[in-house]
Amino acid sequence: MAIEENLDPENWDSMRGLGHRMLDDMFDYLKGVRDRPVWQHAPEDVKQHFNSPIPPDSQPPEEIYKEFQKYVLPYPVGNINPRFWGWVLGTGTVFGALADFLAASINTNTGGLDYHSAPYVEKQLIDWFKGLFGFPASASGVLTGGCSEANLICLAVARNTKAGYPIRQEGIQSIHHRLVVYASEEVHSSIQKAIELLGLGTESLRLIPVNDQFQIDLKVLESTIAQDRSNGCLPICVVGAAGTTNTGAIDDLNSLAQICQRENLWFHVDGAFGAWAILSPQAKGQLAGIEKADSLAFDLHKWMYLPYDIGAMLVRKEEDQRKTFSLMPAYLSHGEGGRGMTGGDLPWFSDYDIKLSRGFRALKAWFSIKEHGILKFGRLIQQNIDQARYLAQLISGSPELELAAPVTLNVVCFRYIQPGLDHGALDNLNKQILVELQEQGIAAPSGTVIRGKFVLHVAHTNHRTLRKDFDILVREVLRIGHQLIQ
Amino acid sequence: MAIEENLDPENWDSMRGLGHRMLDDMFDYLKGVRDRPVWQHAPEDVKQHFNSPIPPDSQPPEEIYKEFQKYVLPYPVGNINPRFWGWVLGTGTVFGALADFLAASINTNTGGLDYHSAPYVEKQLIDWFKGLFGFPASASGVLTGGCSEANLICLAVARNTKAGYPIRQEGIQSIHHRLVVYASEEVHSSIQKAIELLGLGTESLRLIPVNDQFQIDLKVLESTIAQDRSNGCLPICVVGAAGTTNTGAIDDLNSLAQICQRENLWFHVDGAFGAWAILSPQAKGQLAGIEKADSLAFDLHKWMYLPYDIGAMLVRKEEDQRKTFSLMPAYLSHGEGGRGMTGGDLPWFSDYDIKLSRGFRALKAWFSIKEHGILKFGRLIQQNIDQARYLAQLISGSPELELAAPVTLNVVCFRYIQPGLDHGALDNLNKQILVELQEQGIAAPSGTVIRGKFVLHVAHTNHRTLRKDFDILVREVLRIGHQLIQ
Repeated sequence: MAIEENLDPENWDSMRGLGHRMLDDMFDYLKGVRDRPVWQHAPEDVKQHFNSPIPPDSQPPEEIYKEFQKYVLPYPVGNINPRFWGWVLGTGTVFGALADFLAASINTNTGGLDYHSAPYVEKQLIDWFKGLFGFPASASGVLTGGCSEANLICLAVARNTKAGYPIRQEGIQSIHHRLVVYASEEVHSSIQKAIELLGLGTESLRLIPVNDQFQIDLKVLESTIAQDRSNGCLPICVVGAAGTTNTGAIDDLNSLAQICQRENLWFHVDGAFGAWAILSPQAKGQLAGIEKADSLAFDLHKWMYLPYDIGAMLVRKEEDQRKTFSLMPAYLSHGEGGRGMTGGDLPWFSDYDIKLSRGFRALKAWFSIKEHGILKFGRLIQQNIDQARYLAQLISGSPELELAAPVTLNVVCFRYIQPGLDHGALDNLNKQILVELQEQGIAAPSGTVIRGKFVLHVAHTNHRTLRKDFDILVREVLRIGHQLIQ
Repeated sequence: MAIEENLDPENWDSMRGLGHRMLDDMFDYLKGVRDRPVWQHAPEDVKQHFNSPIPPDSQPPEEIYKEFQKYVLPYPVGNINPRFWGWVLGTGTVFGALADFLAASINTNTGGLDYHSAPYVEKQLIDWFKGLFGFPASASGVLTGGCSEANLICLAVARNTKAGYPIRQEGIQSIHHRLVVYASEEVHSSIQKAIELLGLGTESLRLIPVNDQFQIDLKVLESTIAQDRSNGCLPICVVGAAGTTNTGAIDDLNSLAQICQRENLWFHVDGAFGAWAILSPQAKGQLAGIEKADSLAFDLHKWMYLPYDIGAMLVRKEEDQRKTFSLMPAYLSHGEGGRGMTGGDLPWFSDYDIKLSRGFRALKAWFSIKEHGILKFGRLIQQNIDQARYLAQLISGSPELELAAPVTLNVVCFRYIQPGLDHGALDNLNKQILVELQEQGIAAPSGTVIRGKFVLHVAHTNHRTLRKDFDILVREVLRIGHQLIQ
């Protein structure tokens, strides 16, 4: 008989020692995050390093860690740096990272099986979120890998609930009316991806123009719904944005809720980052109506600052979500009560989700929320909003800079301007300024296009940023702009 | 001006000390995993503990960790224990858990942006998998949160590629023929979930009977395809199972590939756990034909033993996957080459996936594969297969036990039998045996139904199991069975 092996460490003590070293290194790394460039190229030899074939034999863990230190650690995307504000990326928390280690160590599958603790942790988080967003205690929800997944789950429930026939069985083929979903032109691309995946097709997605606050134009929305009905389409859902990617605009959610109520449409809110303005006493008024949504999707790895990846979603009526996803083959039989691992009183998350196995990502959220308390998260979100206004003031005070959109939340779009330069030249100039900011490791905004103009895009969800970081940003944009023009 | 706060530890030194303690505790916990019961109820007070409202104020990290130790740690689902074999859950690796800590600390978003290392790590893994499964280097693929997600991505690509018209734009509404997907009755429920989500409806999923090896019946498959065509349906895809959940059966993949070739159908293989038999020189022959699949989905947190959650998928023709998922709004503009963070030569994973933000789950796979080398993973997989055969021999040698299906891979279905008991009584007896095994903390198989009979289900993907653990299982099943009968 062969000797029985396993994948535990060959030497527990040396692995333990390595773990302690990693931990010390990471603490030093995180403490020193401000001292490093926000970003630097992974050079060619680093990229080439990842071209080697799969290793047949074992390699000492210490060596693998050295490889990590040499080829991975120096070339991160940079979002934990205080001057990273691009693409709406989150900062992460130290305690959350420790929680991820604990979760991976106990390696719990949170997806099903009652009577173990992990599902109760996830359920508690969902309960907390219901309370924060004014959803009823009877609502349902799950944690997800992010808001794309959360939007997909919500829109699947919307589709199945509002189609008006057994769509799980029959599919969309048998429908006679085109199902239609409404959102503003500024809606996030994940909504379009979901609509496509769900088999509705982008022709089923009406992109409604926005007003000068970049909010969905309610009049056009209403007339489009009416037009669709008269054309024999079946409107099923309106997607409200609680914080658009481009400008942070929040749609008039109360009015959208009213329209949905009147028109018998599903009201979904994509609150990827902006939903968290709910924690700011000053800003939460902008979200009025979010509590009326039929479903809500949001991230926790953006403006709740948690390590990747974690998002969540809620559905007002629990049975709508369960009816969309629950499936119980014999090997997943559960919920009959009684004893054993499949008894118990807690529904399985797999009855509400696309996925079956699920990691224990709940733990990092639970740890971090308890560590700081939700009031402090509220202060941080307010701080980000105030800092964004501070940046907007700096821009308004600089004749060479121009704001590209109103700053209503935490997103600031601006560009460098220079009299005499035409549209294309200004776009190019600003693209070059952005590249230099990044390449010189100074700061990492991203770029986007607002009303046809290329602009620098600061989506501020960074808990490490100080006002002085925005002083540096503005100073360096001006410096680089001057240099490029000369 | 308000004082600027952040979410870093209030006291770095005490947080560091806590981290070291957690690490020591987890190492002790993992070393001692064999000494604890495989599972125990979370008692009522533990469940109630998670009913408290969201904490407004901060709580010392040490206290939160104590809560974790008291309310979470003692009540895991149990899959890291050597005698856990239920529901096809994985064991995890220690080095992988450390990698998850590193990944969460640097908090890299692997989804996009070139010139940072994380995407190269994920790309290297995908390259390795292409090689292992005989896919061309030009194939595409991504890591996922598991195989449900991987199956969904693959079937979305199949649908969009084979529909024969611009389905992303038009949706399924405009189609005149019902699109049909084929799989065996033993196919995993995630395939049905994906079919429903994609808007095809379960009426588009033909569940073909299986032969006495629990493989899809090829004759019935072929006649069903012919019948569907003559009824005006449009067959688009056959799903082959590489390891069914119930019995571990592997469909005749070569024959399925031939049928798909001849019928111009997409050939998808759901290899959730069974695909990894590719690493066993003895078993890999059963997977012949997997290299001909158009797409392949598999988990890494099952039979590759990695911590949750991680799966992967491959698509033979890269452009099929890109055309299904790529979407580039202005705020995600990239790939124009040149300098800055959106230049570079690596496609963004978001162009191939549902999700946009993505964690750095690649790191734990990269660490663990390098730590052990792929040959050792092959030995472990072979060990699991050999141990499953050993269990099957023990069962065959016990007059009170009966195998319920052939053991071709790592899944053993069996039950306790007793002359004179009718069908219902035997089902009940075996359900009770299962509950007692779990409740007494002895072992955790799951239950399923094979050809109408309730059976104990051992899906063996546990790297810590020794043959003697199966001695204990059989001894205890006999003991409990005797007791229950008396």
